[in-house]
Amino acid sequence: MAETHSLELLVQALRRLPGVGVKSAQRMAFHLLQHDREGALKLAQALQHAVAQVKHCSLCHTFTEDDVCPTCRDARRDRSQLCVVENPADQSALERTGAYRGLYFVLMGKLSPLDGVGPRDIGLEKLFDRVDRRVDGEREVREVILATNFTAEGETTAHVISQGLKSRGVSVTRLARGVPVGSELEYVDLGTIAHALVDRR
Amino acid sequence: MAETHSLELLVQALRRLPGVGVKSAQRMAFHLLQHDREGALKLAQALQHAVAQVKHCSLCHTFTEDDVCPTCRDARRDRSQLCVVENPADQSALERTGAYRGLYFVLMGKLSPLDGVGPRDIGLEKLFDRVDRRVDGEREVREVILATNFTAEGETTAHVISQGLKSRGVSVTRLARGVPVGSELEYVDLGTIAHALVDRR
Repeated sequence: MAETHSLELLVQALRRLPGVGVKSAQRMAFHLLQHDREGALKLAQALQHAVAQVKHCSLCHTFTEDDVCPTCRDARRDRSQLCVVENPADQSALERTGAYRGLYFVLMGKLSPLDGVGPRDIGLEKLFDRVDRRVDGEREVREVILATNFTAEGETTAHVISQGLKSRGVSVTRLARGVPVGSELEYVDLGTIAHALVDRR
Repeated sequence: MAETHSLELLVQALRRLPGVGVKSAQRMAFHLLQHDREGALKLAQALQHAVAQVKHCSLCHTFTEDDVCPTCRDARRDRSQLCVVENPADQSALERTGAYRGLYFVLMGKLSPLDGVGPRDIGLEKLFDRVDRRVDGEREVREVILATNFTAEGETTAHVISQGLKSRGVSVTRLARGVPVGSELEYVDLGTIAHALVDRR
């Protein structure tokens, strides 16, 4: 495949996608050109359209095409609760439960000192400004729910945020750790069981 | 992520890539919009450029931007040998060996009755026309080397091609089956060892 210049450029461009190596990129380019040129053009348009249209919500920082995303605009949501998640996929997992009716703040990342990602890179200042936001002189947010992942980076991120919010007089909570629904104790890791014991109710 | 229309379209378009499910497509879209918008635009351009520029070589049927690909145009290559491969990746594997100086015919597929891929879909007529091509009244191709893969579909394809070439007075050969270089007999499958015994030299 090395002879065709525009094919080579396509393979290189596909390799910038996360998780795509040179073999997968070649297979993708081959598939699109041989079997799905319409799909290739649709993908090109979708990329250009998304880059042009998608920006960040000025309140919760998630992807949106408007200044303020539909969730933050929704008048039926409880504006006193703010749930902090790492990314839009986590937000949509929480939304699918139907158990939460407050608002969100999407970090679009997590603290990861090893990868050089510090507080400024994940917009913690924006989060603190969001929490400090006042409507009619009153602080709107009364509870911040930390729903970062239960990984080392997610825990660090939650810790740093809770430190930053300490002096602000809002209540800071964390998603409960415990035994997953439908699982058998025998197969649950010990750390989880220990947490479920401590947090028993 | 469900709220943003152009993001949703991007995820759908990415899912048309082979081997990309909804989770990978979301991760790709997220990565491009959050960390690599330049890469997204480059990919869009590369796709449009490739769809507009890449066509099939009129002689060997591989991808090329010209009427005849650089390999088929190369005057230093042996025009009496024609190696039949399934796709451009197989061709480039053969090229990398440096052991072959003849020409190619790229099927851009393989016979696969279960998937509804018949002789017409992989352009066998074109291959036969190519073999019948005469220069100064003489048949140019004297040997057809079948280098389709050693899978069920590849073997079937090779068989059908050799049947079609029987009456044409060209010699038809198949890549040798045998023990891979660098491997230990203990770990080689029995079918391969059996073939290596029969084809011993």
